[in-house]
Amino acid sequence: MVSIDLNCDMGEGFGAYEMGNDEQVMSYITSANIACGFHASDPSTMWKTVRLAIQNGVAIGAHPSYPDLVGFGRRAMEATVDEITADVTYQIGALWAFCKREGVRLHHVKAHGALYNKAADTPSVARAIAEAIKMVDAELTMVCLSSSAMVAAAQEVGVRYVEEVFADRAYTAQGKLVPRNREGAVLSDVEMIAQRVLDMVRNRTVVAIDGTVIPLKAETICVHGDTPGSFEMIKAIRRKLEAGNVAVKAFGL
Amino acid sequence: MVSIDLNCDMGEGFGAYEMGNDEQVMSYITSANIACGFHASDPSTMWKTVRLAIQNGVAIGAHPSYPDLVGFGRRAMEATVDEITADVTYQIGALWAFCKREGVRLHHVKAHGALYNKAADTPSVARAIAEAIKMVDAELTMVCLSSSAMVAAAQEVGVRYVEEVFADRAYTAQGKLVPRNREGAVLSDVEMIAQRVLDMVRNRTVVAIDGTVIPLKAETICVHGDTPGSFEMIKAIRRKLEAGNVAVKAFGL
Amino acid sequence: MVSIDLNCDMGEGFGAYEMGNDEQVMSYITSANIACGFHASDPSTMWKTVRLAIQNGVAIGAHPSYPDLVGFGRRAMEATVDEITADVTYQIGALWAFCKREGVRLHHVKAHGALYNKAADTPSVARAIAEAIKMVDAELTMVCLSSSAMVAAAQEVGVRYVEEVFADRAYTAQGKLVPRNREGAVLSDVEMIAQRVLDMVRNRTVVAIDGTVIPLKAETICVHGDTPGSFEMIKAIRRKLEAGNVAVKAFGL
Amino acid sequence: MVSIDLNCDMGEGFGAYEMGNDEQVMSYITSANIACGFHASDPSTMWKTVRLAIQNGVAIGAHPSYPDLVGFGRRAMEATVDEITADVTYQIGALWAFCKREGVRLHHVKAHGALYNKAADTPSVARAIAEAIKMVDAELTMVCLSSSAMVAAAQEVGVRYVEEVFADRAYTAQGKLVPRNREGAVLSDVEMIAQRVLDMVRNRTVVAIDGTVIPLKAETICVHGDTPGSFEMIKAIRRKLEAGNVAVKAFGL
Repeated sequence: MVSIDLNCDMGEGFGAYEMGNDEQVMSYITSANIACGFHASDPSTMWKTVRLAIQNGVAIGAHPSYPDLVGFGRRAMEATVDEITADVTYQIGALWAFCKREGVRLHHVKAHGALYNKAADTPSVARAIAEAIKMVDAELTMVCLSSSAMVAAAQEVGVRYVEEVFADRAYTAQGKLVPRNREGAVLSDVEMIAQRVLDMVRNRTVVAIDGTVIPLKAETICVHGDTPGSFEMIKAIRRKLEAGNVAVKAFGL
Repeated sequence: MVSIDLNCDMGEGFGAYEMGNDEQVMSYITSANIACGFHASDPSTMWKTVRLAIQNGVAIGAHPSYPDLVGFGRRAMEATVDEITADVTYQIGALWAFCKREGVRLHHVKAHGALYNKAADTPSVARAIAEAIKMVDAELTMVCLSSSAMVAAAQEVGVRYVEEVFADRAYTAQGKLVPRNREGAVLSDVEMIAQRVLDMVRNRTVVAIDGTVIPLKAETICVHGDTPGSFEMIKAIRRKLEAGNVAVKAFGL
Repeated sequence: MVSIDLNCDMGEGFGAYEMGNDEQVMSYITSANIACGFHASDPSTMWKTVRLAIQNGVAIGAHPSYPDLVGFGRRAMEATVDEITADVTYQIGALWAFCKREGVRLHHVKAHGALYNKAADTPSVARAIAEAIKMVDAELTMVCLSSSAMVAAAQEVGVRYVEEVFADRAYTAQGKLVPRNREGAVLSDVEMIAQRVLDMVRNRTVVAIDGTVIPLKAETICVHGDTPGSFEMIKAIRRKLEAGNVAVKAFGL
Repeated sequence: MVSIDLNCDMGEGFGAYEMGNDEQVMSYITSANIACGFHASDPSTMWKTVRLAIQNGVAIGAHPSYPDLVGFGRRAMEATVDEITADVTYQIGALWAFCKREGVRLHHVKAHGALYNKAADTPSVARAIAEAIKMVDAELTMVCLSSSAMVAAAQEVGVRYVEEVFADRAYTAQGKLVPRNREGAVLSDVEMIAQRVLDMVRNRTVVAIDGTVIPLKAETICVHGDTPGSFEMIKAIRRKLEAGNVAVKAFGL
């Protein structure tokens, strides 16, 4: 039976601030990328989110970022490779401690926001992340943008990895994400998206924006749950996958 | 052979800022309490300090604090027990990751500054720290102010602990530190201090400020290395201990 | 014609995080206490909130706090008087700059959360705030909890001040707020609260929790708008005041 | 009589951390660029530094930065023009408040580190800074890298400005700074540097790295005081200028 993982950013509140809809979304996903205090979250929020994931049987991943709380980690910074290695190591450890005290294993690491985007096309940044992950715990899996520099880095460094695809984004004929500012880059028809996801998972291909069918390795699907529309999309995708006889479960478990 | 540990706060720089004299001091101590980013330090500084400790064969401990970088963790905050548990857990994990990647075990946890002082006389805070330590890793040792609420909390919670004494501080007849603002509270004669430490370690007693001899359990000695005078004191204590046939080494190893 | 001010905390978002309901509430209040980056807010949020206040003809005040973003300024800290003076000065200046660039005067200063509570019963803290305000701009008005140490400090220092009362809180026979954890401390009947406010403003008295009628100087009413219930309360109070022929406008203008 | 200003970054400590040598350097310079809490400093340090500048008759400028304490503002960030405007406005206001309470005028604004470098060759960033300065206080002067995009932006926006040159840096034939990583980019012969400064001020020209003599408008000289060598350089420059009958004083006063 074919299986697929649905991953979603979780625990992105901060202190008195709430973000997203974690309690509802957690019951539809299989992997949670939990913020570690650099773009969002704080120790109390991390602890609460780890417990919520455990209650829902969701695998827990660290979601490290550049240190930019006020910018929510969405702004690229000229950090050195050593700074990135250190920052990612720190954030993995911080989340690890909450997993350890709650009796579960940390499952994966997925870079956040601007750090994810930078790693997707900058080999040195991708390697810094891969190396940080492997050195802290060689059992951890790195979540990599499909067909990006992150995949190459994970292979080079020798860290476990999975390839991630986006449910609601168009792809170029080269298997890259169509930039958000281009027409047709972001899809919105929920039923079509759900079908597209099912096809990606079953066929390991996708129809690119120019109509060609290209190979695409989909091991985890990135979903979002912070708007009413995105939450509906998660539910539709999950329904379609289950109806299509695809097992929805965390990778590697 | 009697043995004793010399512990010192290390890695208290922050970004471009340096503090203390880590390279020199590290070769005279046996345990380093490394700041974890809440009162001082940052991921790059933590990494560098962990490597420096390893090079010097020094045991590594986490030095968690209230979140107060601008106040260097010296200002008490009305944090709840759950906030303290979460903050301590986070900081232990962050430092653990650097130990893990460098191939050594995290050895102990010692609260910093205002959090240490609060825990010394507030059972609920002491228990929050003890519980955080035990739940993350039951092999870790909690460094407790001798005869304080921290010792009672460690016993209650069932976490490993050692009792800490201060080389350059006077004690009351009840075995408490004489408050810093009282005359005679802080000692300065280096030779006398070194002899006093040797006596504490060998006899498990100390002469209190009123002249009475009281029992005092000294399993680790807190030293400081951030001033020229304090660095001389470390060297004198170490010389005196070694001349007195006391093994200077980290506890539990 | 009797007049009264309705003040409300505004601009308490932070980066990507929203809090409260500023756009709706702003049209019902007459003074906004705008967060200055220490417990909430950031430069972009402050700028946006200043413009929103101006669009609504609302007077702008600084809302300085202890430096505790993660705790939303609700945790008391052992800051020195000089640290408080410096922190309040900094925050007033930061907000002043946005008022200056938008062509309006800064109108008042009201301490936030734990700093407000500390100042209410600690003369040295109240004086530090009063002195910071007066030294930066002697035209500014300090918002003081009615009958508290803040009033005495404002008088001593010689800074302009107004006395603030709470619409939904019970008072002791001594004119103090009944602590929140005591039964009957927080009122919830919107119609009764609105009538109570009208009586306070017209009679300068209030019925204390023990039934006695006590004098109470009400120059500004603290309201909140961050829950549906509190927003209804603002509207009811405003309606009642206007029906009672009380002018609702910012103090001193 | 020809006159020139010597400006230096000041007040770059943070909390318990010290940086530089402010007390000594302050007596040799004429303008201080005081950090505002985003790359360094905190309210207490700003206050202390403002008072030190006043005691030494030194003109006070704000030294705004990207929000990056851990990176000391040396890392470029992808901030939007609106974020930069807001951040600069906030920082100017914060320092203004300390000047106001101490009874002096804020004199100038000079961007720090990565923000300065970005503004030097990015017109939109330079304009954001120029516009923030002008809107807060049209009497303020913007310190601009000589012949850079900052000068053009100041002219466009209509803000007062001065052109800044570097005592110890080589220039290209186009009047640009030779990048630091090129051979010969940084000068070190103190006596030669002092003579070069005197020539720049008197002749408004400099010998470029290729030997050609180019025009260079020098209204303020950037000096540093945080190393023993740089402090000697300040003293040598000042001696040489005074011996050469150049008045050393803050611009615009």
